[in-house]
Amino acid sequence: MARELANNESVIREIFDKWAAAVRAQDIDGIRANHSPDMLMFDVPPPLFSRGLDAYMETWNLFYKCQVRPIVFNFDDVKISAGEDVAFVTAIGRCVYIPPDGGPTKLQFRLTVGLREQDGNWQIVHEHHSVPAEE
Amino acid sequence: MARELANNESVIREIFDKWAAAVRAQDIDGIRANHSPDMLMFDVPPPLFSRGLDAYMETWNLFYKCQVRPIVFNFDDVKISAGEDVAFVTAIGRCVYIPPDGGPTKLQFRLTVGLREQDGNWQIVHEHHSVPAEE
Repeated sequence: MARELANNESVIREIFDKWAAAVRAQDIDGIRANHSPDMLMFDVPPPLFSRGLDAYMETWNLFYKCQVRPIVFNFDDVKISAGEDVAFVTAIGRCVYIPPDGGPTKLQFRLTVGLREQDGNWQIVHEHHSVPAEE
Repeated sequence: MARELANNESVIREIFDKWAAAVRAQDIDGIRANHSPDMLMFDVPPPLFSRGLDAYMETWNLFYKCQVRPIVFNFDDVKISAGEDVAFVTAIGRCVYIPPDGGPTKLQFRLTVGLREQDGNWQIVHEHHSVPAEE
């Protein structure tokens, strides 16, 4: 069982890395490749939440409108908590956006990802991206 | 196994509900009762993250400084994804804070909680509270 859990962790790490690489490549099919149809997204900008894959993909349209090229979308402190059929990932992300009235601006954000396994396949069912609220 | 997972879900729901009740009661021992020493907190206000139970409890000091009394801390859409030894919870929360220059203001926020089971005990190892960034 310890071996199985270690294997799950490496499978999830691969899903996570492929997803981040797809975001950087603006590869729309790659971004959604391992996501559940019932995906629940808590994103950095409004709305409060988005449910379902189509609404999830809309959040990426918004993202691409205000990012530098090439896209920066990298992660530090990636920590995977993998069980047999439920897992979550925490990480600190970095991107570079262009505000409406300014130049390229580095942004650090927090990311939590929730996954479930069914019939041997792991799917991302939840993402929570955020920055601290301004004081 | 289906019975075990259903039982895990009810155990986690009880931990979640007790934690929220402890927050409302300003019961400091109750808030931290089921948390890991390695707790990773992504909170609504800065900093970007807090690690460890002491830093986690500091975030509650900040919370209590700007909330109405009695404390409002309630959740809708609580969804528990429970495996055998890893679980996560998503929810939409409601509180009422008092901004520096205004009256009581209702706030909706997003919450993701990550849990792990060890030796029969479930512990919260991660919380991610946030609001969408202002446009």
